[in-house]
Amino acid sequence: MRTVQYLGDATVAVAHVEPTPPPRGYVQIAVAYTGLCGTDLHVVHGSMDSRVTTPLSFGHEMSGTVARIGEGVSGWRIGAPVTVMPLSWDGTCPACRAGHSHICQNLDFIGIDSPGSLQEFWNVPAETLVALPDGLPLTHAALVEPTAVAVHDVRRSGLRHGDKAVVIGGGPIGTLIATVARRFGGEVVLVELDERRRAQAASLGFTTLDPTSVDQVAWIEEWTGGAGADVVFEVSGSAAAVRGATALAKVRGTLVVVAIHGVPREIDLQRVFWRELTIVGARVYERADFETAVELLAEGHIPADALITRIVPLSETAAAIADLEQGLAMKVLVDVADAS
Amino acid sequence: MRTVQYLGDATVAVAHVEPTPPPRGYVQIAVAYTGLCGTDLHVVHGSMDSRVTTPLSFGHEMSGTVARIGEGVSGWRIGAPVTVMPLSWDGTCPACRAGHSHICQNLDFIGIDSPGSLQEFWNVPAETLVALPDGLPLTHAALVEPTAVAVHDVRRSGLRHGDKAVVIGGGPIGTLIATVARRFGGEVVLVELDERRRAQAASLGFTTLDPTSVDQVAWIEEWTGGAGADVVFEVSGSAAAVRGATALAKVRGTLVVVAIHGVPREIDLQRVFWRELTIVGARVYERADFETAVELLAEGHIPADALITRIVPLSETAAAIADLEQGLAMKVLVDVADAS
Ligand SMILES: [Zn+2]
Ligand SMILES: [Zn+2]
Repeated sequence: MRTVQYLGDATVAVAHVEPTPPPRGYVQIAVAYTGLCGTDLHVVHGSMDSRVTTPLSFGHEMSGTVARIGEGVSGWRIGAPVTVMPLSWDGTCPACRAGHSHICQNLDFIGIDSPGSLQEFWNVPAETLVALPDGLPLTHAALVEPTAVAVHDVRRSGLRHGDKAVVIGGGPIGTLIATVARRFGGEVVLVELDERRRAQAASLGFTTLDPTSVDQVAWIEEWTGGAGADVVFEVSGSAAAVRGATALAKVRGTLVVVAIHGVPREIDLQRVFWRELTIVGARVYERADFETAVELLAEGHIPADALITRIVPLSETAAAIADLEQGLAMKVLVDVADAS
Repeated sequence: MRTVQYLGDATVAVAHVEPTPPPRGYVQIAVAYTGLCGTDLHVVHGSMDSRVTTPLSFGHEMSGTVARIGEGVSGWRIGAPVTVMPLSWDGTCPACRAGHSHICQNLDFIGIDSPGSLQEFWNVPAETLVALPDGLPLTHAALVEPTAVAVHDVRRSGLRHGDKAVVIGGGPIGTLIATVARRFGGEVVLVELDERRRAQAASLGFTTLDPTSVDQVAWIEEWTGGAGADVVFEVSGSAAAVRGATALAKVRGTLVVVAIHGVPREIDLQRVFWRELTIVGARVYERADFETAVELLAEGHIPADALITRIVPLSETAAAIADLEQGLAMKVLVDVADAS
C-alpha cells in the first residue's frame, strides 16, 4: 500500500509498504481523506524531531471506512463510515485519574507519537473510532477532527447564548471556532490581518476587523456598550495578539489560549488583575466534542466546502504542504485512495 | 483633629484639620487602628500621583467605633465597633450591572481615590460599614481588610477541601492566603526567598520552600504524586515567579494572579495550553469575603499577633513606612488615637 512519510531532515516522501492485519483490539480503516493541519507542518518542518520516530506516516484529520476488524473487537461492521479521535491515554496518570484523559500526562497522539492516517490502510485501537452518519460525505467528515478542536475551545470558554466573542486569527481553526461560537448562540467578530481570509469570513456572514486599520479596543468597546467582550479566543499565535487580547475582554471575561506559543509570551497581568479576567488553555478534545462535531457537520452547520480549498492525490502531499506554509490554502485534503 | 497626609513628591506629613460632620448617608468613625500596606507604599512613593488628589489622608485597613451618624442612616449605634469595606461603585457600569460591583469600571477605592482612615474622625458612606463582634480586639480587627483580600483570592482559586496549594510569596498577603487556604481545607506549601519570613511561616505551621536551594518543580511533583499542585497563588510580584508558576500546577490546575505586575510578564503559554491551566485575576473583595474575614478573625483562625510586627503612634507613620519598604516589618498598625 502507499503511504506518505516524514523521513526526518524536513523531508516528505511517498513510500510503498506492506499493510499489516489489525492486532487484537484494533480496527483497520481504509482511509478516504486526510486533512493537513498546522501540527503536520510542524512535524515535516522538523520542529518535533525530538518527539517523532522516523519514518513516520503522519496525518490525523481523516475519514474512511472499516476494512478489517481485529480480534476482540465488536460493534463495528465492514464498510461502516468512521473517523478517529486520535488520542491514546495510559489511564493511570494523575490527569487520567482526575478524569482528564484527553490530556493524559503520557498521551499518545496518533499521527505524531504513533503512525497516522496518510496510508491506505490504517490500524487504530477500536476505542478511537467514531461512527459517522450515512449522509455525511467523507470529504466533509475529514473536518470532524478540527471541528472537534473548535467545539472543545468554545466549551472551555464557557460561552453562553447571547455572549459576544472575539476570535483573533481567521485560519481554519479560527473560522471553525467562530462558526461553532455562533452556532452556540454567540455574536462573533473575527480579527484577521490577511485580506483574503477576512473576505472569506465575511462571505460566511462574520463581521471582520483588520487590526492594522481599526482601533480594536475602541471598536469592541462600542460594540459591547462599554463592557468588553465576554470571550476572546487567541488563535493567531502572535505575540502582539497576546499582548493586546486582554484589553478586549470585559470584567470577569475569558481569554482562551488556542494557538501554540513556542516561547513565553508577555501578558498584561495588570489587566488580568484589574478586570479579574480568566485565561484558559484548551487542548485537543474529549469524546463529547467529537460527537458534537459530527452532528454539526451532518446538520450542515460547518461551511465544509468553503474551508476545503482543494483535494489532492497522495502523491501531491508535499506540494500541498508547501502551499499551506505560504498561506495559499485554508484546508487541503489528501485523497489517500487516489493513486494518480 | 490629626491626620497623616500624602502631600505629593513622595512626602508624608502629620497635619491638623477640622473634622467635618458626616454628610447625609454617611457615618463618622472614630478610627482606632489603621494598618499600612503595599498600596499605601505605592501612594507615598508617588507611583499613583496621576490618580490621587493631594493632600490625601490615605489608609484603608482599619478598625474603629461609630462616633456620629449622618441623616438618613439607620441601623447603627454610637460606640459600635466597625470596620469599612473601602469600595464605592457607581452601580451603573457594565461590571456593576453584571453583578461585579466590587470591580466597578469606575470604582472609587476609599483611601486612594477619596480620603482614607489615617485621620482621627473619618466620614464614610454608611453602606461601607461592616459590624464587628464585641469580643474582637480592634488591633486584630484592623486585619479584616487584608484577610478579606485573602478570602477573595482563595475563593477565586476554586480551592476545595483536600487540595494542594502553593503560595509564592510569604509577606502579609501571602501568609494570610496560606492561612485561609489551610482553614478552607487545603494543604499548603509556601515559597519565600527571605529566611525570616520562611521562619515565621514555619512557626505558623506551614511547610516552606527556599526557591534558591530547592528544585520547586521536583519538590511539588513528589509532594503531589506526580500530578502538580491544584492551585498556585502568585503573590510575589516577581517576573521569575510568574515564569515558573505554570510549571507547578497540575493538569487543569489554577494559577491565581494576586500580586500587581506593573509591566507585562512573560508566561509559558505552551504549558497553559498543554495542561489546560486556568489563570485567574483576583482583585479586592466582595461583601461576603469581608464577612468571612470578620468570622475568621473573631474565631481566632488568623495569626493576628504574629502578623502585627508593631503598633506606632500617628506621628511615626512615615518612619513605619520606611521600615516596611526595607522589609523590616510584616504589618505595622498606626494607633490613630495615640497623640504621642
Ligand atoms: Zn494518563
Ligand atoms: Zn460600576
